[in-house]
Amino acid sequence: MNVCSYTFEEYVNLVKSFHGYVAPGVVIGGFMVDLALKHLPKDGLFDAICETSACLPDAIQLLTPCSIGNRWLKVIDVGRFAITLYEKYRGEGIRVFLDPAKIEAWPEIKSWFFKLKPRKEQNSQLLLEQIKEAGADICSIQQVKVKPHFIKIQHRGGFTICPLCKEAYPVDDGRICRACQGEAPYMVSQILDNRRAPNEGESDNHTESEYKEERDVISNNQIRRGEKVQ
Amino acid sequence: MNVCSYTFEEYVNLVKSFHGYVAPGVVIGGFMVDLALKHLPKDGLFDAICETSACLPDAIQLLTPCSIGNRWLKVIDVGRFAITLYEKYRGEGIRVFLDPAKIEAWPEIKSWFFKLKPRKEQNSQLLLEQIKEAGADICSIQQVKVKPHFIKIQHRGGFTICPLCKEAYPVDDGRICRACQGEAPYMVSQILDNRRAPNEGESDNHTESEYKEERDVISNNQIRRGEKVQ
Repeated sequence: MNVCSYTFEEYVNLVKSFHGYVAPGVVIGGFMVDLALKHLPKDGLFDAICETSACLPDAIQLLTPCSIGNRWLKVIDVGRFAITLYEKYRGEGIRVFLDPAKIEAWPEIKSWFFKLKPRKEQNSQLLLEQIKEAGADICSIQQVKVKPHFIKIQHRGGFTICPLCKEAYPVDDGRICRACQGEAPYMVSQILDNRRAPNEGESDNHTESEYKEERDVISNNQIRRGEKVQ
Repeated sequence: MNVCSYTFEEYVNLVKSFHGYVAPGVVIGGFMVDLALKHLPKDGLFDAICETSACLPDAIQLLTPCSIGNRWLKVIDVGRFAITLYEKYRGEGIRVFLDPAKIEAWPEIKSWFFKLKPRKEQNSQLLLEQIKEAGADICSIQQVKVKPHFIKIQHRGGFTICPLCKEAYPVDDGRICRACQGEAPYMVSQILDNRRAPNEGESDNHTESEYKEERDVISNNQIRRGEKVQ
């Protein structure tokens, strides 16, 4: 049971290295992408839509050239566990979804998918075995046509400098940038100088000890930042 | 001039394999992530915010464990070329942005960033050389605190079956799923049977020839779907 050009085990390792842990949703997502690709022409330019922000986008990013940063993958979060790959200009494509009618035969998958028991009580090994055995059998497929609104190529009208934050922003956004219009997700507490190392002066208010207490109570399979992805 | 644990050239290759091409924004993004990490404690649990959906999310996904699918990376698209890495519970973090005041010394970077000339007239090689030489010198840093609203852990209230599409959806979304409420990005034209190969029957209305004409007029450095990412 392969996932695109990977063996199941290779793909599971890839999921772990990119996603941080072996999330069942990304593993199932691998079979979903594989199934969609089998129903599409071998060549061609395809974009992707993911109907949830949980797990599935990473399966698409690992197995196709579509990523969030190149914008060939769009997350349109309507809360369904489904992906679509479609011809990027005409919008014709294949949608694959996890079909509730088909998971009855796989109790551990059903229990995970519908959150029927607390995570601690889940049998992760059995779940992974059932996912491997079920493969794409728990999915259904639809032929779809993406609405024109979603395939329209958006041309941006250039950038200008925001008079408040002095950063560049899309000129179409108005006289000040949208962050300064109130959409910024944070408060700026201090401007640092990147020419100086953080421990050389006043530029770093965080100390190791400040973080230590928090870290000590966190027990998890934590990954250090900046490590190689593969 | 390294980018986290990679040499510049290794990182450029990684960008090409994941992002599809050597996008200047993802390359600069590498230096931005590297700079942010240098100002954060070596250990700890950090989440990421990206202020644009263009390019930068992929630098974060390549160099940190944060991805769209594990939701440790959030794209809050306010149109600024900036990233933030922050302690996930307290929200204290480091924001790095490309500083317009600092790119005057790098004409090819400035010209690319502000789209001052058509893409065809860009000197890609010179641009990449300037990016490599400039490194993080074109960035500025801020210490920020993410607003509580954005760091709140959202617990979902379980899933149920939508009476219309028969798929699972978050029960909090209402009596039918949001796709059936009108948010679906496509029309379903046909339901296929995934137990049958697409060329065995009526299940695939697409033919190779239908796609051929389109493909022939597309000249680009196209990547086949399903290829290994690295």
